[in-house]
This record gives sequence, structure tokens and C-alpha cells, in this order.
Amino acid sequence: MAGNSFGTLFRISTWGESHGRGVGVVIDGCPAGLALSEDDVQGELDRRRPGQSTVSTSRKEEDRVEILSGLFEGLTTGTPISMLVRNRDAKSSAYDSLRDRPRPGHADLSYVARYGLRDHRGGGRSSGRETVGRVAGGAVAKKLLAESGIEVAGYVRELGGVRAKIPDDVDISRLRDEAEKNPVRCPDQGAAEEMVLALEMARSAGESLGGVAEIVAAGVPAGLGEPVFDKLDADLASALMGIGAVKAVEIGAGVEAARMRGSEMNDPILPGPDGPIFETNKAGGILGGISTGEPIVCRISVKPTPSISRPQRTVDLSTGEAAEIEIKGRHDPSIPPRIVPVAESMVALVLADHILRRKVARI
Amino acid sequence: MAGNSFGTLFRISTWGESHGRGVGVVIDGCPAGLALSEDDVQGELDRRRPGQSTVSTSRKEEDRVEILSGLFEGLTTGTPISMLVRNRDAKSSAYDSLRDRPRPGHADLSYVARYGLRDHRGGGRSSGRETVGRVAGGAVAKKLLAESGIEVAGYVRELGGVRAKIPDDVDISRLRDEAEKNPVRCPDQGAAEEMVLALEMARSAGESLGGVAEIVAAGVPAGLGEPVFDKLDADLASALMGIGAVKAVEIGAGVEAARMRGSEMNDPILPGPDGPIFETNKAGGILGGISTGEPIVCRISVKPTPSISRPQRTVDLSTGEAAEIEIKGRHDPSIPPRIVPVAESMVALVLADHILRRKVARI
Amino acid sequence: MAGNSFGTLFRISTWGESHGRGVGVVIDGCPAGLALSEDDVQGELDRRRPGQSTVSTSRKEEDRVEILSGLFEGLTTGTPISMLVRNRDAKSSAYDSLRDRPRPGHADLSYVARYGLRDHRGGGRSSGRETVGRVAGGAVAKKLLAESGIEVAGYVRELGGVRAKIPDDVDISRLRDEAEKNPVRCPDQGAAEEMVLALEMARSAGESLGGVAEIVAAGVPAGLGEPVFDKLDADLASALMGIGAVKAVEIGAGVEAARMRGSEMNDPILPGPDGPIFETNKAGGILGGISTGEPIVCRISVKPTPSISRPQRTVDLSTGEAAEIEIKGRHDPSIPPRIVPVAESMVALVLADHILRRKVARI
Amino acid sequence: MAGNSFGTLFRISTWGESHGRGVGVVIDGCPAGLALSEDDVQGELDRRRPGQSTVSTSRKEEDRVEILSGLFEGLTTGTPISMLVRNRDAKSSAYDSLRDRPRPGHADLSYVARYGLRDHRGGGRSSGRETVGRVAGGAVAKKLLAESGIEVAGYVRELGGVRAKIPDDVDISRLRDEAEKNPVRCPDQGAAEEMVLALEMARSAGESLGGVAEIVAAGVPAGLGEPVFDKLDADLASALMGIGAVKAVEIGAGVEAARMRGSEMNDPILPGPDGPIFETNKAGGILGGISTGEPIVCRISVKPTPSISRPQRTVDLSTGEAAEIEIKGRHDPSIPPRIVPVAESMVALVLADHILRRKVARI
Repeated sequence: MAGNSFGTLFRISTWGESHGRGVGVVIDGCPAGLALSEDDVQGELDRRRPGQSTVSTSRKEEDRVEILSGLFEGLTTGTPISMLVRNRDAKSSAYDSLRDRPRPGHADLSYVARYGLRDHRGGGRSSGRETVGRVAGGAVAKKLLAESGIEVAGYVRELGGVRAKIPDDVDISRLRDEAEKNPVRCPDQGAAEEMVLALEMARSAGESLGGVAEIVAAGVPAGLGEPVFDKLDADLASALMGIGAVKAVEIGAGVEAARMRGSEMNDPILPGPDGPIFETNKAGGILGGISTGEPIVCRISVKPTPSISRPQRTVDLSTGEAAEIEIKGRHDPSIPPRIVPVAESMVALVLADHILRRKVARI
Repeated sequence: MAGNSFGTLFRISTWGESHGRGVGVVIDGCPAGLALSEDDVQGELDRRRPGQSTVSTSRKEEDRVEILSGLFEGLTTGTPISMLVRNRDAKSSAYDSLRDRPRPGHADLSYVARYGLRDHRGGGRSSGRETVGRVAGGAVAKKLLAESGIEVAGYVRELGGVRAKIPDDVDISRLRDEAEKNPVRCPDQGAAEEMVLALEMARSAGESLGGVAEIVAAGVPAGLGEPVFDKLDADLASALMGIGAVKAVEIGAGVEAARMRGSEMNDPILPGPDGPIFETNKAGGILGGISTGEPIVCRISVKPTPSISRPQRTVDLSTGEAAEIEIKGRHDPSIPPRIVPVAESMVALVLADHILRRKVARI
Repeated sequence: MAGNSFGTLFRISTWGESHGRGVGVVIDGCPAGLALSEDDVQGELDRRRPGQSTVSTSRKEEDRVEILSGLFEGLTTGTPISMLVRNRDAKSSAYDSLRDRPRPGHADLSYVARYGLRDHRGGGRSSGRETVGRVAGGAVAKKLLAESGIEVAGYVRELGGVRAKIPDDVDISRLRDEAEKNPVRCPDQGAAEEMVLALEMARSAGESLGGVAEIVAAGVPAGLGEPVFDKLDADLASALMGIGAVKAVEIGAGVEAARMRGSEMNDPILPGPDGPIFETNKAGGILGGISTGEPIVCRISVKPTPSISRPQRTVDLSTGEAAEIEIKGRHDPSIPPRIVPVAESMVALVLADHILRRKVARI
Repeated sequence: MAGNSFGTLFRISTWGESHGRGVGVVIDGCPAGLALSEDDVQGELDRRRPGQSTVSTSRKEEDRVEILSGLFEGLTTGTPISMLVRNRDAKSSAYDSLRDRPRPGHADLSYVARYGLRDHRGGGRSSGRETVGRVAGGAVAKKLLAESGIEVAGYVRELGGVRAKIPDDVDISRLRDEAEKNPVRCPDQGAAEEMVLALEMARSAGESLGGVAEIVAAGVPAGLGEPVFDKLDADLASALMGIGAVKAVEIGAGVEAARMRGSEMNDPILPGPDGPIFETNKAGGILGGISTGEPIVCRISVKPTPSISRPQRTVDLSTGEAAEIEIKGRHDPSIPPRIVPVAESMVALVLADHILRRKVARI
């Protein structure tokens, strides 16, 4: 109830701060009998890890996960799965100068407004480091989804104004493989090069860039989602908007739906080999909050990294006077490439939850 | 857990189908001592009610609310508030022809996929009529928010491609008053006229139109929102995406944030009379998932009404063959004007919940 | 979250006060496809209804239930089932004299301590009338359990010091049938006569009596219960202790277990036709919080009705002075006979919930 | 939802098995600003720890707690508090012989019935070792309660048939201090000696003994508890019945209430210095599910330790044949002395939760 748990039947609870002793997650509700190893989780954490290229933060974190409970002889036991990642390369002193100077675009002031105090070191709980727990949880969700033939993959569609060209008919695994080949996680290699260039220019100007990521889930059966408040799209919207820096969530046609006529937006229904299918997928795989059997398509608009090295206006909390702030530290010049595994994880968690919830929908 | 409740501490549970005996809501968690009457609720229901103009459905529903419990001598008692609205003008036979022909853009097929059966009359539970319970619950939330000086108001920003001009510095009460003067709920009277025209043309062509609504909450104190999964923006995204026909949710700069640079997106922090304030509000009043004290600004993209009178392609479920469908019934040619009170209600419910949750955040 | 909902996957939310417009319940999470009619529910409400004999209150309530939603063509649809019972014979004026005089043994003072105000008419929400919603919900739970071959039945074991003799090997349906033959719901007809006599004497002395009821669930499969906090026995304890007037809950050997040695208490495990079985059932059908396949046996100790016609000492809230109170009204001289259907309902609700929860325990 | 979390606003989630890598707990909802250190928690864990006397198991566990998150400069930050205790002295091989022989009185068969598999080493998740997380969480709850002047203490009332004499008017702190002076945690030193003797005799006979523990909470303000399903007594019953080996829970007069008349059971209301008070406390501090301001009094009946060294009848799961089992290992001959800190913790967790919940009960 206090905001650090996500999901109903497949439920994660994350904990940990950027500069505390570690970060982690407890999964409650993973069914017994699922094959799982630390390697399964480590693979996803490695995709999230910083320090992998010139266009991401140079903070080095080994990020080795330890599964502390819930496994016996290689299978989940139905009891909670607790996972721990120790913090190592945390330079707290780099943040001393920020203690009294809230950073524009960050949660510094709002945390104080809520809790009366805050751990100012690296954003504390509001740090992107918190997403380690989400990705570890998401890795288990992905294993569970794979049992049902569901695959979740994401990539960057737009960054710093550069838009990727992504053909409609390309398989999602293929898109992901292409995306993983470059540091901006864009499946269009030409666009990727331009994005890298834009990022390097932005960084040298002390700036950062926003962008758009798309997450697709293929193989999702019809019938997932629980009207009227835990609809599949409502849960996805919560999952994705709750990732730091996301300012918009779209499903299917998204914002374009507002400019369409009914006959354009409605996906015609056709006879298919195993029952009705849809000619198009403007709905993004969801109607009435329930999956249709078509791929689930979500898009998120991500704001530029708020930590920039240019001087910015703020207030010194000790004096109440106007002040300037220059944020040194090590920061990604753009969030979308690293948000992809986090957003995939959140989508996987929503789907895993609804796969379980569907089991009790009928007699 | 089964999807028909919303909120944590201020919690509504809605029930009812389009063509059943009635619709309603139970509110659990409304604090004791709030002045409340049936008139407070009726006023909001009247704003939602159909049959009010040529550009909305001609279905007539008196929609009289009865408060069955939770009040004593004009005050809430802290016990559940149960509210009932009987269905009256439900022409079920009009839907007989739809029994075997799922409507494109509707939840007909997905309900069957989930539950194995469905109440086909008027969409059953997936009908917009279900929102009666949300609006009744939202009316009580608004009363509670008013105690804290919070006001929630909404209007249509764009419809059928026509965009309203809305100055930044106008008071939200004023915008709402202007919006309530015309049937499309747009505060720009010139744009409103064009929208009405567009709707009339669309209707005569057997079509429907999409649009954009904006909801603003003013007077919201800093400190609302519960990281990391019940952030204020995550809860708003769930609340708004869960309304039928919504395909995108934006907070503050929304999709535009993806095209900005850090220095453009970050709202500078300035000294204010009672502590730091923000020069701009591109964040939409939320940073790190917690309110900043600035107005909360949300936008939703609404798809065109899926029920259109033009012939559409579908499948006859009794034969499995391709078929055509023409939807007669009485339907709004566009949803945004009528979605406004529903979206306001959902935003009010989220805020009421977080006003209570904030009470337990500190010792 | 605000205390008026019970259950996780099969969840009821009750509402209503003794002297308001009605009482009711919303069930969320009943699977689609269950055959259900108003008669199913009415039958259980009739068992709960007052005014059925000389040893229960003479308040007359027709208690006709109306199912407002969630059914279509005789089957549940998977959407919320809302049920309403109007209050009719509510003599509020009888309670005027109690407005300022809190009744010993009742919740009058504690409600004021919590909410700052209370509906003093007939106990308001703390009235036994609130259990109408529980019994209506329990009736649906019983229908669901019957699909799995589970039967829940209860009876009075002890009343006013008179103990029934109940052979161990008697079938639970038979015990219930016997119990329903007399007004004290005791399957031992000789003891029942003594109990009735004791009640009549107590009533004429302006007194009331306590007693013990036992609830048994037969046909419960092994594997129900969710360690470590939603164990089957923990949930049953909450369900039963939460009924007004219950002061103790026992499972299996109960309080006697504290006086046993390990070799007496442990039920030996024997080979059975379909796997291991237990020679005895001192565990009451639950080990480690999970059902064993043996009958579930619960017992509740019920305090004497707090409303007695003898003068009692209290305080006049308007003056703060000591005062006397004589409670007129219409009250049962003993609660156990009427608590039986309520306790059965609560046990049925717990089991229905866990039948659903078990569906997601394994891959 | 999957059973490993307890509480609503002050919520713990425990994880870990007897012979895994460790056990732990995550607390979500502890308000910001509470002074807390590892020593606060360690002190309570030391009370729970085994190996402290001849009448408890000789398993040696250092049980050092590490607080991994949620603290900054000695104060809670409002973010999750994650605590870890590594397992060290786990002799898994001692359990090899039990793999195929379910132990009478244990959860061995029921875990397999639920999950299809089980970690047979030392009971896995059903081990008493799981209570480390509860006690760590309870330690934080006690710190929070101390801020409100609430103290929770427990002791053994009866063991192996020996009943302690406990005067009614003795202060709870005093009772606890006395109880902590002997290994059976009984405040009556004479009775304690007899209990120790009984335990030694039972152990040498290969037997174990049951008993009764009592938990009292003093300083609890009136108004805690959330009718009608999250009543204070219902939550306490769940909390206490959910501890392994507990077979009965009583509040106040408990099972004796069933043998009283109304005029005996009702606590008379008297004028007090700050409003009405109660002459007696047969209610155990709770009326209508809400605290009255009197001490909360709970009692639990605890079955004898199921692990006994005498031969017992069971079934060999690999052959399906009858078999004998002698349980070696290291086991307490009686559970009540060691259950006291666990039961205190559960009571403290319930009260901490309701202290927070009361904050939102009124406008």
C-alpha cells in the first residue's frame, strides 16, 4: 500500500537507494515449478547496466545479482524470491554540493515536501538505480511469459528529433536483435548513427535529449485484462508512466487516434483460421481493456535527462536565495536507450500478472 | 482485486451493466465528518447525462441518484457510502441483431475471450454507462478535495482536427465555466462552433470523430504521490487510460517532452514568498511522481466513437463467415465532450486518495 | 483498504446501517459461468432473518434480496454482483433515549472514539443487521464451493452452559439437518430443549447467555491456504473473530491442544487409497496453514448478547455524570443460534477465495 | 496478494527458508522521521534466537541483522526498509532422511499438495526460522508504537499443564521483566520452575508439551480498528493464528465469555477524569472491533512441538507404504517460550498499522 509494490498476483516489491548498501526486489506470487537461475536474471541486468558505451554514464557497477530465496533444485517453490544487488561504485561525496541546491527537473524538492527529509546522495530512492529491482523482477516475469509463448521487446523509435524507419511487418525478435547492435538501441542502423551524433553534440553543449521508445509484446493471447479499473491498458499506463522521465504513454494509434474518423480507427474483423481476427491493429492489441490476440504496442515519450552540466537556476535551501547549479557527476545524455530494458520489464510484469489473473476469470 | 475497485485509502467499487437493473458505486474510506448530500452528487451526474444536445446520444436517462448508506444528519460517518442509479430507458431489443456480430472497435470479442460469455445488450459492463458510478464517486472526492482548496476541471482542447486556443494564464474555474457554455465543452467559443459543425458533418456521413481533453487540478499541495509504483503520474495514467476510448495520456509537456533539450524541459527553480517555486510548469506539476505545488496538467487522446452507422466488416459468430454490420442505436458522434466529467472524476479520485495517503507519510 | 471488503480474489464489500435505507453487498471476483438466482441467496437470508421464534428478536424484516448486476441469462458474467436488501421495520425512535447513553458491551463509545460521531440508531454499522451482506455474499460462495464438492455447515455446540453431545462420526449434512429442526440450531435435540429452557429463564431475568458454535467444511481438497500470512487458519480466524460478539476462535483441538503432548496431538499418517491420509483430525484439517484434505473444523466462543433489559451502569455523555440504562428494544437473548449462518458464510467466503487462489499456485 | 505480506499501511513482506541463503523482511509504509538503528532490531532478534538454554533447540545462529535501505543519518526516510539475516548453522544433510517421509503434525504433505514440490530441508518456508523476518519487522513497529506511548509485552501463562498465577493489577513492563528472568518466559517464578521440570521430563520421554501465551498491549488509545472486516480483534486473530503451532486465539474473556451471562460480561461504564472509562476489562480492550482505551489482552493456545524423537507412524512417499519416523535434529521441546517475541511482534505490527489507519478516519 505504501507504493513500493507492483502487481496483484505476480507482485514485486522493490527497495534500495542509489547510495545505500544495495538495491533489490522480492517477488511474491511466482508460481511453483518455473525453471530459474541467477543467469536468467543477470542477463537482463547486464542490459540495464551503465558504463557500456560513450553515450551512457561512466559509473561502473558490477551489478551481480544474488537470489536469496524461493528456489530449490533449480525450480521456483512458490515462496518469495528475494534478490539482492550490492551497491559498489557509489561516490557519495560528489553529491555534497547538491545537499542544499535542489536540481531542476529532479524530485529533490518534492521528496522533501512529502517526507520532510531526503537522502540527497544521487537521488536516493528516486534514482534510476532503483530500476535494478524492476529489471530483476521483470526477468522472472519474462521467464514465466515464455512458458506461454509471449515475448516482450523494445527499442528506441525517436531520439533528439531523429526518427527511425521501422517497417510494420518486421518480427519483434528481429527488431530487438537489430536494436541491440548499437548503443542507442534503435533497430534502424542509419537512424542510430544520427542519434549517436546528436547525443555527442548535445553532451558537448552541456545538454541532454529526449526521445521515444516502443515496447511490443507478441504472442499475447486474447482475454488478458480486468475491467473496469485493472484494464490491461490502464495497468500498462501505470507501469510505464511510473518510470522516471516518462511524460506520455500511448497504446496503438495513441495520440494519432484523436485525429482519426471512426472508420479509420476501427480495426475490421475478419474470419481467421481459429476464429475472428483483425485486419489492422490500430487498437494496439487491446479493446475494452482486454487483449485481442494482436500484438500489444505501447509507446513512451521520455523527457531529456534533467542532469545537465550547463548552469541552471535554483534556490539555496539554507539561505532561501537564488543560486546557480552545475551538475557534474556521471549522467546519461539521453534516457531512452537505457529505459528500454526497464520498460520491457514493466510490460512483462503487467502481462505476467494478467496471465495469472485470467486463470480465475471463469468457472 | 478483480478489477472493479479503484483507489487505496479513498476507494470506489463500481458495479452495473448498461441494460441491467441499475448501476452504482460503493465508496469505502471517505473520512467521517464530510458534509454531503444527494444534490452534490446529482449535479455531477447531470453533467455526465446523455440526451443534452444534438451532438450527444438521444438516450434519455433521468439518472436520479439515491445514497443508501454512510450518511447521518448530513455528514459522512466513515462507513461505506453506497449509491444507486436505476436504469430506465434501456432498449435491449435494439441490440438483438448484435448478439452474433461483434462490433469493430468495441470490446465484444475480447469480453468473450475473457469470460466465455457476455451480456451483449449495449455493451454490458463495457458500456459508457458504467461511468455513472465513477462520476458519483468523483463527486464525493471533489467535495473532499474542496476542503483542501483543490479544484479539478476539464475541457475539450481539440476535436475532429479543430484545436482550441487556450491562453496559459487563464484560471481553471474560468476555463470550465466557458467550456460548460457549449455542447462540446470547449472554452474557446469560436473553436467550439467549428467543432459542432465538424460533428454534424461527421454524423451525416455516418462517421465519428476523435479529440483531446485536458484536465487540470489547481490548488494541489506539494507532496502528493507515493514512489515508486504509486506515483501521482502513474496513478493518473492508470485512472485516465482506464476510461473507455482513451489511447494516450500525457502529463505536462507530454509527447512534446521527447523533442526538447534538457535546458528547455527543466523548470527553473526560483525563490518564492513561502519557499522555492517554479518559473514554468513543463513538468505538469509532478516531479519524481510527487506533486510540486504547481497545477497538475493531464491530457488524454480519445479515439472516435467506435459505433458508426456506416457498414463495417465483421464476422458472424454463429457461422464464422464474414458479415457486415450497421450500428443503429443512439450514439454520441464524439466522446470527448462527455468524457470530461468522467476524466475529472478519475483525477479527483486519485487526488483524494493521495491526500489521505500523505497523512501517513511522516511521523 | 478501509475495512469493508473481505477476500482477495473472491471479494465482498458490504455496506449499510441498521436504520438507513438498506444493506447490501458487492461481490467482485466471482468467476463467470456460475449458475445463480435470487432464490439461492434468499434461502440463506431466510435462515439469518430475525423474528422466527420466541427465542430471537421479534423485529420483522422481510429481507427480500434484489440482485442488481452481474447476471445474464441465469449465469454470472464475471462482473460485479451487487445485491440490495431494503430496511423496512426500523423503529428508530426506540433508540432516541440511547443517543447520550453508551450501552455497556456495545461499540457505542469506540465508534465515537474512532469517527468523532456515530449513527446511534440501532448500532448503525455495528449492528448485526450488517451481516445481511455477509450472508448474501456467503450464499454465492457456497454455490461456487458446491461446484468443487465442498459443503459448509454449522450448529450450536453449547449454550448457557448446556453442552450438546455430538458423535464424531456423524456426517455434516446430517448434523445441519438436525440442527435446523430447533430454534437454537443444536443437533442434539435433548440438549436443544434444555437450551431453550435456559434462554427463557435468562430472558425473564432480564439476562442473556453466551455459547459456542462449530462450523465444519467437508470435501475441502488439500492445498488451500497461502503461507505465511494468508494461511487458511489465519484467514478463518480473521473471518470469524470479525463477527460481532465472538471472543475466541479455535481450529481443530483448539484450546485443548495446549494441554496435549506431541504424541497425542500429532495425527498419524497412514497409507490411503489415493495417497497418504490421517488417522485422526486434531489438526482440524489444516497443517502449516494449508488444508490437509480432512474436514476443516472451527469453533467460536460467543459472548452473551450485550443488550439486556436489566439496569446497567453507564455515563450520560451530555453531562458526563454516572447514569443508568435499561435497554428496551427487541433483542435475541442469545446470539449463537443466529450467528450460525453468518459464521458459515464467512467460512464459505474464505474457502471460495482460496479455491481461486490455489489456481495460480503452480505453473 | 500471494500471502507473504502483512499489514495495510505499515506492511511487512517476509522471505526466506530455513536452509536457504538467508531470511529477511521488507517494511513498506514506515513513516519518515523515526529514529532507528540496527541495534533496535538486533535486541528483539536476540530474544527470538535459539540456543539460549537447555530447554530450547541447540541450533546456533548468530542472527546478525543488516539494514540495507530506508535509513539516512539515523532516521527512516519513508522508503522501504530492507533487512537481511544470513543463515549460517544450517545442517541440511540432517534432513535427508525426511525427504520421503512426511512428519506428522508438520506441513510436509500440505506443501506438496499446494505447490507440487517442497524444500524439505528443515521445513523450508514453513520453518519457525521464517519468523526472523516477523520479529525484525515487529522491532520497527515497536519503535513506532513507543512514539505513541504504546508498549507490547508477552509471557507464558501455562505450559505442560502448569498454570502461572498472575495478579490482575500488575504492570505489563513488570510482568515482562519477570518473565525474561527464566527460560520459559513465565512471570511466576515458582510456576516457571515447575514448567522447566515438566519440559525436561517430556524431553527425556521423547515428547513435547503445549502451552498458553498471553500478549498485552498497554497505552493503546481508543479508536483503533476498522470495521467491519479489519476490526482490531479480527486482525489480531489473523496475526496470531498465522503463527505456526497456534490453534486458538482469545481476546479478553475469550472462551470463558461463552459461559457468562450478559450482566457478567458487560464492562460497566463509569465517569473518568477525561471521559468515560470501564470498570472491568472483560472485553480485552476491544468493542465492536475498535479499541476502547483499556489494555488489549490476547491469548494463544500453542500445540506441542510436532517434532518429537519418539517413533511415529507415517508413509514413505517413494513406496506409498506405511513407515516409521524418528525425528532427530534439534528442536525445542515446547514452543510457547520462544513464540512470545514472535507473538509480540505480530501484535505490534497490527497496532502500528492501525495507528496509521486511524489518521485517515476523520476529516
